Amino acid sequence: MEPVFSIPIVLPTRGKGMLAESLHKQLRTAIVDGRLAGGMALPASRRVAKALGIARNTVVNAYDLLIAEGYVIPHQGAKATVAEGVARRAAKRIFSELASRESLINPTWKMPLPRHGPETDLPARSFRLGVPEHQYFPHDVWRRLSARALRRWSGHGFGYSPTEGIAELRDAVAQHVAFSRAVACSGDDVIITSGAQQAFDLLARVLVTPDKTRVAVEQPGYPPLRDAFVAAGARIVAVEVDAEGLCVERLPDDVRVICVTPSHQAPTGVAMSLQRRTALLAFARSRNAVIIEDDYDGEFRFGGRPLDALQTIDQDGRVFYVGTFSKSLFPSLRKGFVVAPAWARKSLILARRCCDSHCDPVSQAVLAAFIREGHLARHVRRMTPVYAERRAAILDCLDGKLGTWLAAIPPQAGLHVAAHIRNPEHANWLISHAHRYAPGVQSLAEYSLDPKAPPALVFGYGTIDIIDIRKRLAQLARAMGR
Amino acid sequence: MEPVFSIPIVLPTRGKGMLAESLHKQLRTAIVDGRLAGGMALPASRRVAKALGIARNTVVNAYDLLIAEGYVIPHQGAKATVAEGVARRAAKRIFSELASRESLINPTWKMPLPRHGPETDLPARSFRLGVPEHQYFPHDVWRRLSARALRRWSGHGFGYSPTEGIAELRDAVAQHVAFSRAVACSGDDVIITSGAQQAFDLLARVLVTPDKTRVAVEQPGYPPLRDAFVAAGARIVAVEVDAEGLCVERLPDDVRVICVTPSHQAPTGVAMSLQRRTALLAFARSRNAVIIEDDYDGEFRFGGRPLDALQTIDQDGRVFYVGTFSKSLFPSLRKGFVVAPAWARKSLILARRCCDSHCDPVSQAVLAAFIREGHLARHVRRMTPVYAERRAAILDCLDGKLGTWLAAIPPQAGLHVAAHIRNPEHANWLISHAHRYAPGVQSLAEYSLDPKAPPALVFGYGTIDIIDIRKRLAQLARAMGR
Repeated sequence: MEPVFSIPIVLPTRGKGMLAESLHKQLRTAIVDGRLAGGMALPASRRVAKALGIARNTVVNAYDLLIAEGYVIPHQGAKATVAEGVARRAAKRIFSELASRESLINPTWKMPLPRHGPETDLPARSFRLGVPEHQYFPHDVWRRLSARALRRWSGHGFGYSPTEGIAELRDAVAQHVAFSRAVACSGDDVIITSGAQQAFDLLARVLVTPDKTRVAVEQPGYPPLRDAFVAAGARIVAVEVDAEGLCVERLPDDVRVICVTPSHQAPTGVAMSLQRRTALLAFARSRNAVIIEDDYDGEFRFGGRPLDALQTIDQDGRVFYVGTFSKSLFPSLRKGFVVAPAWARKSLILARRCCDSHCDPVSQAVLAAFIREGHLARHVRRMTPVYAERRAAILDCLDGKLGTWLAAIPPQAGLHVAAHIRNPEHANWLISHAHRYAPGVQSLAEYSLDPKAPPALVFGYGTIDIIDIRKRLAQLARAMGR
Repeated sequence: MEPVFSIPIVLPTRGKGMLAESLHKQLRTAIVDGRLAGGMALPASRRVAKALGIARNTVVNAYDLLIAEGYVIPHQGAKATVAEGVARRAAKRIFSELASRESLINPTWKMPLPRHGPETDLPARSFRLGVPEHQYFPHDVWRRLSARALRRWSGHGFGYSPTEGIAELRDAVAQHVAFSRAVACSGDDVIITSGAQQAFDLLARVLVTPDKTRVAVEQPGYPPLRDAFVAAGARIVAVEVDAEGLCVERLPDDVRVICVTPSHQAPTGVAMSLQRRTALLAFARSRNAVIIEDDYDGEFRFGGRPLDALQTIDQDGRVFYVGTFSKSLFPSLRKGFVVAPAWARKSLILARRCCDSHCDPVSQAVLAAFIREGHLARHVRRMTPVYAERRAAILDCLDGKLGTWLAAIPPQAGLHVAAHIRNPEHANWLISHAHRYAPGVQSLAEYSLDPKAPPALVFGYGTIDIIDIRKRLAQLARAMGR
């Protein structure tokens, strides 16, 4: 068989429909890799058909595809030619191997910063932080409300919905925080976000002018919040937390954004005193700063009456109150919110539109119904004694068997307990080995920017029952006593 | 009655349980607004009880609450005193009225940029862009798959899930794009996002170093993509689009990111020629640039075989292929994806974690099942002739009754048709009045950074049937003919 192309063509013996496709593919590959050079005339279809022993029409079909794709140029009354400049080899010649694609990445996302992701290799029952109990969740109610929301939404709600969230959820959230935390707001003040993390990200983008705005975070504090501000170009200043919360007197004068967890400091668990709250608001007013109040798990309270939220006592529109349903309901719901002062709301909505437009309206409608029909309040009431019992069990073990080594900081709210390591000599062992006996336990150092911060451990009790708490902590105590 | 406080106290006459609460509230308000000064001793509870004619225990309860809150300091064997520094008035004195809170907002979110939100005041059936038809959507299938996903998820999936998306959806998306667009990838290459907009935002954050990276966008082009890059601090260069797509030869040498819509240019509708595609890839290789290929509605095709995606012919890891289910399914689903080269994937995942952690796993599971069980392919097959008919009806009207004024650019794919305004003298009238007759129609100028760009209109056909198309466009033609 006389060769018609400068390249070998091998066609399948069966499946006639595949012949044109196979020929087309082999010719295209040869054109792209430069074996059939730009400008070269293709042999006439009649000749190719004869040489390959196939129908002429098959060749015409393959040629037509190449023409449609632009790899081959037809010429009236003359042979078609291979298009110029489509071979990859031509590009290769001018490509400098020195130019690295990785150099294009913004250094923020290359830095070996301590960036925290979800722990995925922990057992189901552990001392992990930030995940609540799912065993008592009214899954049946949630499914029923979901089915209803999906039915209602079939008719409309197919297109884009409001960036700030659907009105029924904004209203429900406003009522919820007014009732549970005395936060003074209406639905108009609320912006629905994909979890508290998106609220932090939006606030960072809107309130930070890169390399200029100085932002105070708690030391120790919640790393993902810090990451959002670092990514936005903030100049971060870590301000110490003591038994009364953030040491307000240590805030530098030029700080413009102050991030705090006054109800239940993350991760030490202390509550900010009223004096500090008042001083913080006074600082913000006098220095033209704003406060981001992260109230991530304040629904679950074990002590007396909670102190008022900063948002409640602020009268100057300087507090952004951030809440989440990750602790009161569940993290994978991805629902949080900001109660924002009017002067900043439009900017936050613009930023949200640029990020991801809006949250899906069906899950918003389900959550709105869950709140409005009282299921959220009921679930919080049901879970509070469950968590109280777990908290008591942990404190009991920490004060008892583990009291020689650890000094607990009893929290008034939330889903975790921190404990100082009494003797620095035990710190290394505890930080590197405690998780073998108490899986999910974390070192406070993971929340800290200061390598000299006093060593401590943090125990979550969202996903562990009292039997396991006692068993695990007894094992830890035995290991320590050896 | 002898006054015990320097302020008037008015107690309710009924509801005894309210007495302590009312007293507490009035005292607290007086402390906060400075009428009861810091350091002042409170009168003994016995004396207050007598003066107000209430039980002593009621006064003790009110005092205890104030002490718990930190507004009042107890003293062993002496009268309790009002806490220092908690009065708001003290803060007011040092507050400078000159300091403006609005000055804290990053200028990016204050600028009067053309930022585009969803059109909310249009009739249900209109020429609006970017929203597909919901009447033929298999809502029943979607509800069934949702119910199943919710049941399966009840047991697990309560906590955080992978930032890049759940494995079953990443695999399903990889198979979908491999089949429908010959995009070469596996599930590992896919990152699930909240719509294409989040993909643009993540790419902008990762690929742009502020005030340094030069980014090319199409002129005219999709404004929300441009907004994401502006927000990330990119130096934007708008590069003209002609009948073959982006004019690659006009790209400045120092451009590092090039954003294109090669399948169906947004908004003109032209397809990028193979020559331009090859030249663009060669440019990216030789200049160490990357390409963002936005394939937003390529599933709906009306012409012959589509040209290969840039991602398909790239062999150098320079193309980020961005897709969305907003057109093939529905926008409120908020699901899109990036097929990203390996060298950039970790950075994108870090950025996503900082933005909002991840998409909720239940809606991901529903979409994965919808794709895997063939419903997506079936829906696209079903909708393609529906849209083809609408496209034909619009082209028919544009070429017929409206042909005197408009010159359509017939698209090979997608859900909209652009048409040039033949005579610039008609442009003003058409741009300001056409939407009265053809609601939802947009001026191409809304997509343009160049005020001298040739005037044109864009007609979407996602939400309008052929009867309305004919009726509306006949009305427009009559209005023009007058």
